[in-house]
Amino acid sequence: MTAARISPSRLHETIAELSKIGRQSNGGITRLTFSNADIEARKYVSDLIRKAGMSVNIDKFGNTIGRSLNAPSDAPTIACGSHIDTVPNGGALDGAYGVLGAIEAIRSIHENYTPTKALQIIVFTEEEGGRFGAFIGSRGYAGLLNTSNVYAMRDKEHVTFQDAMHNAHLKPSMQFSRQQFNIRAYVELHIEQGPILEHEHKSIGIVQSIVGLGDLEIEIEGKAGHAGTTPMQLRRDALVGAARIILGVNRIALKTGIPAVATVGSVTAYPGAPNVIPGRVIINVDYRDTSLPRMRRLETKINSISKQVANESNLKIAIRRRSLTKPAKMSAKIVSMIETSSRSLGLSFKHMQSGAGHDCQNMARITRTGMIFVPSRNGLSHSPNEYTKPKQLENGANVLLETLLRLTNE
Amino acid sequence: MTAARISPSRLHETIAELSKIGRQSNGGITRLTFSNADIEARKYVSDLIRKAGMSVNIDKFGNTIGRSLNAPSDAPTIACGSHIDTVPNGGALDGAYGVLGAIEAIRSIHENYTPTKALQIIVFTEEEGGRFGAFIGSRGYAGLLNTSNVYAMRDKEHVTFQDAMHNAHLKPSMQFSRQQFNIRAYVELHIEQGPILEHEHKSIGIVQSIVGLGDLEIEIEGKAGHAGTTPMQLRRDALVGAARIILGVNRIALKTGIPAVATVGSVTAYPGAPNVIPGRVIINVDYRDTSLPRMRRLETKINSISKQVANESNLKIAIRRRSLTKPAKMSAKIVSMIETSSRSLGLSFKHMQSGAGHDCQNMARITRTGMIFVPSRNGLSHSPNEYTKPKQLENGANVLLETLLRLTNE
Repeated sequence: MTAARISPSRLHETIAELSKIGRQSNGGITRLTFSNADIEARKYVSDLIRKAGMSVNIDKFGNTIGRSLNAPSDAPTIACGSHIDTVPNGGALDGAYGVLGAIEAIRSIHENYTPTKALQIIVFTEEEGGRFGAFIGSRGYAGLLNTSNVYAMRDKEHVTFQDAMHNAHLKPSMQFSRQQFNIRAYVELHIEQGPILEHEHKSIGIVQSIVGLGDLEIEIEGKAGHAGTTPMQLRRDALVGAARIILGVNRIALKTGIPAVATVGSVTAYPGAPNVIPGRVIINVDYRDTSLPRMRRLETKINSISKQVANESNLKIAIRRRSLTKPAKMSAKIVSMIETSSRSLGLSFKHMQSGAGHDCQNMARITRTGMIFVPSRNGLSHSPNEYTKPKQLENGANVLLETLLRLTNE
Repeated sequence: MTAARISPSRLHETIAELSKIGRQSNGGITRLTFSNADIEARKYVSDLIRKAGMSVNIDKFGNTIGRSLNAPSDAPTIACGSHIDTVPNGGALDGAYGVLGAIEAIRSIHENYTPTKALQIIVFTEEEGGRFGAFIGSRGYAGLLNTSNVYAMRDKEHVTFQDAMHNAHLKPSMQFSRQQFNIRAYVELHIEQGPILEHEHKSIGIVQSIVGLGDLEIEIEGKAGHAGTTPMQLRRDALVGAARIILGVNRIALKTGIPAVATVGSVTAYPGAPNVIPGRVIINVDYRDTSLPRMRRLETKINSISKQVANESNLKIAIRRRSLTKPAKMSAKIVSMIETSSRSLGLSFKHMQSGAGHDCQNMARITRTGMIFVPSRNGLSHSPNEYTKPKQLENGANVLLETLLRLTNE
C-alpha cells in the first residue's frame, strides 16, 4: 500500500505555536495544570483535535478526550496521547510532541482513510506533577484514583484541584468515561529524555517496559562537633557515612546492570557550616528497574549497605520509602507492530526500556500499550534546551501513524 | 608561699551576669561586634576591669585594654585576655570565661600583691568573625592588619567597621598602642571546645601549639541528567565524585594522625532534585595541623586525591584555597610555668594542641604565649549547651593567676 504520511509542515507549525504558550523570558516554558497558560494551551489543542476530525470532551479529571467524529461509543477504539503540562521552565517537546504528533497522525489518517475502529486521543492532566502530583490524569483515567480524593488535593497555595479546575472553566462531560469506551490499545509517542538513541544513532526507540520507580529518604545521624577540636578517632561524622552510602548505592546499581539505575540526587548536611562536623545528613535515593522482584532486591541491598555503614561507623540510620511505582510491560504485539512500521519506513530502531515514567504506564493497567521514542539531543529534557531534529520528529509521528493504522486493521 | 586564690563567687557571678547580655529566648547568647548587646557587655566588663585595679582604654581596633593603675607605659608587661563577642546563638563561656577569669585573676593579684610588672588584659574585638571577619582585634593588635583596610570592611548590611565602631560610641585612645607597651608574655584562658579533657578526666589542658587552618573549596563538575533515562555507564555524577573525595579527605587525616584533622562540613549538589543526577557539587574542606610543612603535605594529598577522582570518573575539578592560617607554637617556658602552677594546685593536666583558633595565635607573632584549657562538657561550644563545671572554671582561673604571678616574678 502507498501509506499516508503526516504533514511535516503542520507538525512543526503546531509544535512552534504551542511552544509560545507559557514561554518565559529565558526561553523556557511553564504550563502548570489549570494555569492561564494551560487553559490557553488546552484551547489551542482542542481546536487542533477538532480540525483532525474528532469531537472534544473533558472527563472528570480534566483530561481532554478527542474521538473520531460519529464513532459509536461502543466501537473498538485505538487510543493514543500524552500531556501538555510542563515542569517549571521546561522545553517544547516533553509531552507536547506526543500530543501534537498524535493529532497530526490521526488527522492524516482521517484525511486518507475511513478507519474501521474509532481513534481516540487523550491529553492527560498533570503528568508532571508540578501542581498537585504526578500522573493524576492517567491514573484517574485508568481507575487508580478516587475522584473525591483528587478533587480535595491542594496546591502550594492551598487551592483544591476541584476549585482550580472550576476556575479554569473546564466542565467535565460526565457521560464520557473510560468504561464507556472499548479501548483495544494505547500508543504513546515521546522524546527519549535520555542519551541512548543519539549515542547509538538510532531513529526510533521501541519501548519494551517502563521502569518502576522507588524513592527512598535516608537519614544518617552522627554527632556534630567542632572541626578543629574533635580528633578524627572520636568522630561520628554523618557526612562520611552518607558518602559511603552514596558510593554503595552507585555500586549496587552498576553491579545489578541494565536496566537498573540508582541515583542520589539530593544531599543536605546539618548544620552545614565548613567548620562543623555534620551531625545529620539526609539523602534521597531514586532507584528504577523494569522488574518488580529486581526492584525489591535493589531496595533490600540499599537498605543493607546503609545499615552496614551505620554499624561500622557508629551512626544511626532511618530509611523511609516515600513512594514505589510498579514497572509496566508493553504489549509484545504492539512492540512488534512498531518494529514493522519502523522497518517499512526505512528507519533504524532500538528496543529499549523507558527510564522515565509516562502516562502510558498507567494505561498499561487497563489495555495493551506501546511507546515510540525519538532521540533527545544530549539526552536533555525538562530544560529549555530540549531539542530533537525536525526530521526525527517527523519519523516518530509517521511510525505512530503506521502503528495506529495497523492497530485499526488488526 | 601561701598563694592568693581567685574568688569563686565573684567568678561565677560575673559569668552569670555577662551571660544575661544578648540572651535569646531559646537560651543562646548573641553578641555580635558593636551590636547593642556588645556595647552593653563592654560597659559591664570595663566596670569590672576598673574594680580589678586597672585603667581602661580603647585602641583603634576597638580592643578594650585594661592595665594596672599607675604602671608606667614602658614597664615590662604581662598580658592576658580573650573576647566577649559570640557566634549567633552561642554559649556563656567561649571567650567570656577567658576575659572574666583573667579579670578575676588580676583582681586577686592586685588585692594581695604589688606585682613587679604591669598586668594587662585585652578584650579583643570580633574574635568570632560574626560581623566583619575573624580575629580582627588580635590581628590588628599584633600589627597584622592595616587600620584603613579594617575601617573600610563592611558587614552584611554594608555598614563599615568604622561607622559601626563610631555608632557604638567607642573612642580610641590613640596614645595606647601595642608599640608603647613592653609586653613580655601573653596567656589566654579558654574552654577546650573539644572532648579530650573530659574524655581523659583531666582538669587542665596545657596548650603546646594552636593548629594552623586551611580552608579549601572544591568544585566538582560532571553532567546533570535524568535519573531514570541515563544509564549508569554513561553518567558523570558529580556527587559520586564528591563522595569519593569526602572519604579520601577523611582517610588522609586519619592516616596522617594526631593532631591532623580534616573535615568536609558542607556539601551542595546542583540542581539538588531527587530525580536528577547532580551535575555540579561544591564541598568545603577544613584541614588543620600544628606544623606548617605537615599542613602543606595534607593539602597536597587532598589536591591529589581530588584530581585522581576527577580523572578516574571523567569529572572536572576546581580547587580554591580560601584561607590559610599558620600554626602558632606556645612558649616552652610558659608551658612549663602552667605545668608547675597546675601541680602546685594539685590539678591533673594534659599537654595538648588547640584545634580551634584563638586570639592567642596572633599574639604569638609578637610575644611569648601560653594557653590554659578547662574541660567542655560533651566537647560542645558555639552552642547554648556549652557547659563547664563551676569547680573546673575555678581551677582554670587559679592556674592563670599562678602563672601570671610566676611571669611577674620571672
